[in-house]
Amino acid sequence: MALFITFEGGEGSGKSSAIKKITKYFEEHNIPFIISREPGGTPIGEQIRNVILANNNNEMDITTEALLFAASRRQHLVEKIWPNLKNNINVICDRYLDSSLAYQGYARGLGIDTVLEINQYATENTFPDLTFFFDVDVEIGLDRINQNHEREVNRLDLEKRTFHEKVRKGYQELSKRYPNRYVVIDAKMPLDDVVNKCLEILKERIK
Amino acid sequence: MALFITFEGGEGSGKSSAIKKITKYFEEHNIPFIISREPGGTPIGEQIRNVILANNNNEMDITTEALLFAASRRQHLVEKIWPNLKNNINVICDRYLDSSLAYQGYARGLGIDTVLEINQYATENTFPDLTFFFDVDVEIGLDRINQNHEREVNRLDLEKRTFHEKVRKGYQELSKRYPNRYVVIDAKMPLDDVVNKCLEILKERIK
Repeated sequence: MALFITFEGGEGSGKSSAIKKITKYFEEHNIPFIISREPGGTPIGEQIRNVILANNNNEMDITTEALLFAASRRQHLVEKIWPNLKNNINVICDRYLDSSLAYQGYARGLGIDTVLEINQYATENTFPDLTFFFDVDVEIGLDRINQNHEREVNRLDLEKRTFHEKVRKGYQELSKRYPNRYVVIDAKMPLDDVVNKCLEILKERIK
Repeated sequence: MALFITFEGGEGSGKSSAIKKITKYFEEHNIPFIISREPGGTPIGEQIRNVILANNNNEMDITTEALLFAASRRQHLVEKIWPNLKNNINVICDRYLDSSLAYQGYARGLGIDTVLEINQYATENTFPDLTFFFDVDVEIGLDRINQNHEREVNRLDLEKRTFHEKVRKGYQELSKRYPNRYVVIDAKMPLDDVVNKCLEILKERIK
């Protein structure tokens, strides 16, 4: 049965680079998969993403943001995640529900349970089978972002350092709440080690 | 105390024309008010409105749509409705919560209660003090729209006739659920009669 695999972590935790290498392994071994990202992943989701991340939308209320993420996620599930899983194609996703729980729920203080409730309308209790949490010191993560000049700096990147600390704590909290699907990866390791660690676990789970 | 007044009804029920005349009365009598509309009402809300109403977003899931309306509504409350009511300024709104309940909840079949639950995160139980439901035969409403060439035709206008019948039934259902705030207006009457009927009730409520 196909797996729903998500990658989570703070800014600069190296998710995107690792995902590229991991999907290369999937390709080489003819393991069927699609790769997607949140917010976005569908044309409607991309439009919602533009609203969420626009640098001049500073007036955005926390609950508005949480509802927009949930809307984008719903569309993503309906158009991409559910149909692919149904066709036995693995779904690899750069961010999903846990991002909302860590960012809006924990770090912005809406509450993990409230954000979970809002998202239940969107997800109908679709949780990932496997969630890799790339855990790294905020300092290291932010340094990585600043060195990567190709990467577009968006509204969420500009948040204060303490906010990123809270995001990390949020994910740590979630890894305790969902121990069965969470795999905590020490993301300060070199990229190849991170990738190998993820592949080690994936190989066990994918036949 | 300022009132939160909403106008609801199907397409072509004459809400917008009546609101113009009613606000003229408010102006002439120096009654403080703002006028707004949903979806939209704020810059962020207008961006969300564009996503909801775009003619090429045919893939939009019903729950996605409901979440987007709730997000727009939240922002509208935070930036405009709550601050004005707090400053004792009457708020007149062309569509609000009941539109979601009638359109997504009843007509599209998500269920009035489900849409109400989603919206509770957005509204924190802020209901209008007074809701004018402009009730009119679907036939008459659609004829009015077709004759008004200035009006932009959007995705929701193009829905089938049976859908509009359901919207009307949804509002009729809501008028029974919320008898204290609902005023049902026979909107097939000439515009001036409709306006006079609304003003009659408003005069009683506004000192």
